[in-house]
Amino acid sequence: MTAVEHRPANPAATSADRPIGFGRIQRKEDPRFVRGKGRYVDDIVLPGMLHGAILRSPVAHARLVSVDTTEALAHPKVHAVITGRDLEGLNLAWAPTLSADVQAVLATDKVRFQGQEVAFVVAEDRYAARDALELIDVEYEELPPVIDARRALDPGAPVIRDDLAGRTDNHVFDWEAGDAAETDAVFAAAEVVVAQEVVYPRVHPAPMETCGALADYDPVDGTLTLYETTQAPHAHRTLFAMVAGIPEHKIRVISPDIGGGFGNKVGIYPGYILAVVGSIVTGRPVKWMEDRSENLMSTSFARDYIMRGEIAATREGRILAVRTHVLADHGAFNATAQPTKYPAGFFSIFTGSYDLQAAHCAVTGVYTNKAPGGVAYACSFRVTEAVYLVERMVDVLAAELGMDPAELRLRNFIRPEQFPYRNKTGWEYDSGDYEPAMRKALEMAGYDELRREQAEKRARGELMGIGVSFFTETVGAGPRKHMDILGLGMNDGAEVRVHPTGKAVVRLSVQTQGQGHETTFAQILAEELGIPPEDIDVVHGDTDRTPFGLGTYGSRSTPVSGGAVALAARKVRDKARAIAAAMLETRPEDLEWEKGRWYVQGDPSAGRTIAEIALGAHGTVALPEGVDGNLDAEVTYDPPNLTFPFGAYVCVVDVDRGTGKVRVRRFVAVDDCGTRINPMIIEGQVHGGLADGVGMALMEFIGFDEQGNCLGGSFMDYLIPTAMEVPDWETGHTVTPSPHHPIGAKGIGESATVGSPPAVVNAVVDALAPLGVRHMDMPCTPARVWAAMQGRATPPI
Amino acid sequence: MTAVEHRPANPAATSADRPIGFGRIQRKEDPRFVRGKGRYVDDIVLPGMLHGAILRSPVAHARLVSVDTTEALAHPKVHAVITGRDLEGLNLAWAPTLSADVQAVLATDKVRFQGQEVAFVVAEDRYAARDALELIDVEYEELPPVIDARRALDPGAPVIRDDLAGRTDNHVFDWEAGDAAETDAVFAAAEVVVAQEVVYPRVHPAPMETCGALADYDPVDGTLTLYETTQAPHAHRTLFAMVAGIPEHKIRVISPDIGGGFGNKVGIYPGYILAVVGSIVTGRPVKWMEDRSENLMSTSFARDYIMRGEIAATREGRILAVRTHVLADHGAFNATAQPTKYPAGFFSIFTGSYDLQAAHCAVTGVYTNKAPGGVAYACSFRVTEAVYLVERMVDVLAAELGMDPAELRLRNFIRPEQFPYRNKTGWEYDSGDYEPAMRKALEMAGYDELRREQAEKRARGELMGIGVSFFTETVGAGPRKHMDILGLGMNDGAEVRVHPTGKAVVRLSVQTQGQGHETTFAQILAEELGIPPEDIDVVHGDTDRTPFGLGTYGSRSTPVSGGAVALAARKVRDKARAIAAAMLETRPEDLEWEKGRWYVQGDPSAGRTIAEIALGAHGTVALPEGVDGNLDAEVTYDPPNLTFPFGAYVCVVDVDRGTGKVRVRRFVAVDDCGTRINPMIIEGQVHGGLADGVGMALMEFIGFDEQGNCLGGSFMDYLIPTAMEVPDWETGHTVTPSPHHPIGAKGIGESATVGSPPAVVNAVVDALAPLGVRHMDMPCTPARVWAAMQGRATPPI
Repeated sequence: MTAVEHRPANPAATSADRPIGFGRIQRKEDPRFVRGKGRYVDDIVLPGMLHGAILRSPVAHARLVSVDTTEALAHPKVHAVITGRDLEGLNLAWAPTLSADVQAVLATDKVRFQGQEVAFVVAEDRYAARDALELIDVEYEELPPVIDARRALDPGAPVIRDDLAGRTDNHVFDWEAGDAAETDAVFAAAEVVVAQEVVYPRVHPAPMETCGALADYDPVDGTLTLYETTQAPHAHRTLFAMVAGIPEHKIRVISPDIGGGFGNKVGIYPGYILAVVGSIVTGRPVKWMEDRSENLMSTSFARDYIMRGEIAATREGRILAVRTHVLADHGAFNATAQPTKYPAGFFSIFTGSYDLQAAHCAVTGVYTNKAPGGVAYACSFRVTEAVYLVERMVDVLAAELGMDPAELRLRNFIRPEQFPYRNKTGWEYDSGDYEPAMRKALEMAGYDELRREQAEKRARGELMGIGVSFFTETVGAGPRKHMDILGLGMNDGAEVRVHPTGKAVVRLSVQTQGQGHETTFAQILAEELGIPPEDIDVVHGDTDRTPFGLGTYGSRSTPVSGGAVALAARKVRDKARAIAAAMLETRPEDLEWEKGRWYVQGDPSAGRTIAEIALGAHGTVALPEGVDGNLDAEVTYDPPNLTFPFGAYVCVVDVDRGTGKVRVRRFVAVDDCGTRINPMIIEGQVHGGLADGVGMALMEFIGFDEQGNCLGGSFMDYLIPTAMEVPDWETGHTVTPSPHHPIGAKGIGESATVGSPPAVVNAVVDALAPLGVRHMDMPCTPARVWAAMQGRATPPI
Repeated sequence: MTAVEHRPANPAATSADRPIGFGRIQRKEDPRFVRGKGRYVDDIVLPGMLHGAILRSPVAHARLVSVDTTEALAHPKVHAVITGRDLEGLNLAWAPTLSADVQAVLATDKVRFQGQEVAFVVAEDRYAARDALELIDVEYEELPPVIDARRALDPGAPVIRDDLAGRTDNHVFDWEAGDAAETDAVFAAAEVVVAQEVVYPRVHPAPMETCGALADYDPVDGTLTLYETTQAPHAHRTLFAMVAGIPEHKIRVISPDIGGGFGNKVGIYPGYILAVVGSIVTGRPVKWMEDRSENLMSTSFARDYIMRGEIAATREGRILAVRTHVLADHGAFNATAQPTKYPAGFFSIFTGSYDLQAAHCAVTGVYTNKAPGGVAYACSFRVTEAVYLVERMVDVLAAELGMDPAELRLRNFIRPEQFPYRNKTGWEYDSGDYEPAMRKALEMAGYDELRREQAEKRARGELMGIGVSFFTETVGAGPRKHMDILGLGMNDGAEVRVHPTGKAVVRLSVQTQGQGHETTFAQILAEELGIPPEDIDVVHGDTDRTPFGLGTYGSRSTPVSGGAVALAARKVRDKARAIAAAMLETRPEDLEWEKGRWYVQGDPSAGRTIAEIALGAHGTVALPEGVDGNLDAEVTYDPPNLTFPFGAYVCVVDVDRGTGKVRVRRFVAVDDCGTRINPMIIEGQVHGGLADGVGMALMEFIGFDEQGNCLGGSFMDYLIPTAMEVPDWETGHTVTPSPHHPIGAKGIGESATVGSPPAVVNAVVDALAPLGVRHMDMPCTPARVWAAMQGRATPPI
């Protein structure tokens, strides 16, 4: 036993020589993760806890004739079996989705996709619960399924959502943006028009941790404590109050460590509600955790957009207009998590990074007999699809014009002096300086040299491809006036408290899923207040300990909560100034700030550090009028606009002529997310997103057969890239701060996921160009590349 | 399973017809208590938890020669044995007290009182830990103890605190208040002077739950979670950071339900620190819970004041001045929990409720070989002693003058027009109207009739006594400028948050120990915002969920945090007005408030309820400049002054002439605590305090023999009153609001404890007056009353 034994075991956290503020510091959260001390929902064990399991439909479309739970209830370890009928008694059989639709919590009338929730068993352990599922006798009367979105609106197609009053087809919505007549006029007069159908297939975020919940309902005081895998604890709490009838102040949602979200943990899944009902019914805590197959088959997928795009241009390569129509497959329920009622991300950015004369887009949503959800996978609400479409189309145009695709992009960029730039659907891009980013990427890649190498290889019959993409993203929603989720404005809060000893806590409404919030937000506070990051505790994931806000998705955390933290810190700094003035017996306006300290102008030795001021604030200093005895502030930040990070990517692939196998040989990514808080964390985000993009471009795919059987329900079928499939990433950056954000930061969480798929596919198509290939759809699996090489249509999988 | 099964089981909490705001509503916290669902520190079980036990000194004063832990460490279930030497290595052998002294956590050089902490065993269960204590071999070299405070300063008395550099005697401090010369002059010229030595014996708060802690130190991230029986979680957290070297932001103090405090749970006991050290050393959670004997023998006692009082008066019964000297026995360490460094409560109020020309008081503190601590038992820092002294002295004067004691008091009260009244030690009484309270008590008691009854009984030789007391209390410390604890100002915080659905939470720095905070503070918020109390969650007892503040003691909660809640609620109301104006498209100044709603002046139908405004605040309403998207506020309240509740008590006793046994036949209590929030809770507080007072007056006593053996170490020896020993209380009230408090409330938690002992003792002395008794000291046990009846000196016990 020595005097240092009670010090933290993380040496990085006690280093005195690290920078106070922005910079490449080690992540504060990593010591617990690298030691296996992370605490996830499934790690939590409560006394008397029971375990739930969900019986899921084996068929995609059927009438539910009967559900007989007699045998399951007789299982000695089973405490409860809950069916849709039971939920009807609680008025909980259907729950509102985040998109003006409803979704069955447990099926009552029909099942509408393979994997839909039919019954819930609560038992002493997970094994008994699973065993008892097989004792439930369900009679299904099968119906013909609707699987292909293109067929969903056919006359005579089976009506999937006959639960909705008056519904006679599978139509969900028609939305449009831009001026159709103006756009058509530009197209009619254009020298060149190219068109292409582009499919962004259904993929899945596939986080390392699946979804789950542990519900603990206390019948004595009527409180519900809900441990959940969620990216948005406060929004869930409010929605639970609205859905379940438990008053909001009686609900506590706790999101402990989360093993990856990527949008998969935004929505409220039936399993969460079932855990709550299970706890209410049994009077015991009930845990429900998905297995991998359940996660892949039934939680929010992404994409599933069939897009027809057209570009109008001049012969010289001046892009004039974009026109597109999208068929959006929403599965059996429109459970989309998105702000406002339309795909804001798509509409804001299908015009790309280019200065257009006109643009128009229409999206038609349809129901199919597939799992519901969608869009929330690292996409900022359909930005990913829009960027893929426009970047693929630009390459199609380049091919048509016989022009280099990088050169074509450089000719059409919005120019720096045009920012803030209002695009043809009315969205204002906050800042951008695209050409330097593009040139930097080309330079890092050695673009000209690559083209020479490609020419040589082509001469030898080898298939080498160079793909370029340039993207602008719409991230960081609000503003509250423009966007909401079920009436809740897209704002987020931060509270800053400086304790009497000068240590601090910052409490956030956003929730980390591995992206380093505990470090990034500590650095923002450190930068503003001069308190070292190791002296700052970052709290999130507990509605009882954090201010209200809409949570983490769409790269919102830094743009929204980052603004909140900076502004709250500045409030604290101003308050500290008033208190320091009282301590120094001078006027606040006579004080100057240096990081961590207010001092008297002209007398730097006369000052008070933040720690000294903190003790004074909580101590006996006579405070000025209107200043109370703490060093705390809370801010709910309403961003005046979204932020628009951008980037330029270059991908080099080799395609095996004998097998069609694509190898990504190099990948250069130049990103601009404005102010860079922790470059190491930014690079980590980019690395992860690039792997996402390579995965989607080459292998990831949730397919269905004609009966609606999901063909991507395990990691044997749903392939994700490993270290073998990705190159060493080559990253660079430019810095174009957001002019409206308190620290100029824009958000980086999704950039690479958004920007990389078109670079990879453009590279594959470029490689296959000598074979006459102008386009192929993702994923570019060997079988599909082989088919393209043979001039055949892309096979389904 | 029905639709209502998940509703709270507390019918009171869902009643729609209860008043919104102040009034006699049922306690929100009671459903869990009456169902046995309270959650106390000892109810908390953490995975892998170990149990600690403390080896205590059997002798009062001895040199510690050796502590051999070999055998204890060999016990198969023992994980660690910690001695004072081990703590020296951690620099934790001594801890600062709350009163500019230090206290041994584990003895290193000497033991200084019976029950002092010598070693700490951590074992798999509580039984093994206790067993292993007997395996520790300690060699003591006994020293003569100092037990009688009157002998502590004798030349040649053993020096107890030889650990303090240069200390050659047992003197702790000399403090004084008032003008000695002025007072002496009044005395010299006075027609009548009476003097009396009055002893307030050592007693103990004896809460139902003993003290304990469960420490959970996480070596990976260096965080300490400490579940503690404390009335002041935030102050403990800051002090732990200062003492243990664990940064403040890494410490979380949680006080769950507390089974009574009464001041006993203000200080930081060695056991708390030992649980922390045990957890650090073993890497496991460690729980330590006192048994009853440990609680009585080693935690904060109360009183132990030997007071000489004098009153100067005119023949007509005009009181002119008070002069007093106190010998304060602080035990072996000055571990007093009190704001500032002097006994502010005593100094502020030994002048009583009377309009004096002069007053002077001196207090000499001494060390003795008894348990340390003191003063924190329902006393507002020695108010109890001061009130007892002055109210006893007034009766001595009445006897001297042959005047009715009620009449004497009525003649000398500070008059209503004199408030705010500055007394002769400089304290400003905020408000008072004493005569109506006194007359009400006399009327309720039927005072004149009682005196007639007494005269008849005396004529028959029966001993009936009527005791009157009138008290004013100093409660609700700050202000911060005047008072602090170890440099922390006497302020407290409250946070109010209205959730999007209109439910609310109020978070407090003060901590309930049974007195109904969850109800009282909900009612304050309800009164200010019009949200029903059942829709308000009150949070306390968790430093991670509440604002900073100094906690609950000295009847501070309502005066300080009650002010904070009211002011925070008004901030929320103002913010709601601005948002309502935006929603109604009008100006804030055009809106009128009715409870729970802002509406347009002259058009009551056009308005928005708080719930509607809450949704607007968190929704998409375009907010006015400077208003952000929440309905939250935090206030740290610095009270401009203390509050001064008062009361008039009448006690009727019968003394058994054959046994000396005192029976309290009636007790009338008229209290004035200003604005009354929940009369039922106020009455409960008064009932509890009256039982306290009867107990102290008649039976409670921590005695010591000449060797320093504690004679009050169990409930066999330390007697507390049961329902058999107390009458049905007769309570009444007047209402004189505090002029400076936001809602005019003053605090009621200690009034009856303070005011009732002199009423009981005055009644006993009044009963014995025909036998020539002018005074007797508490406790008025049968043996002592018998001795007094015989004209003999009071025996020690």
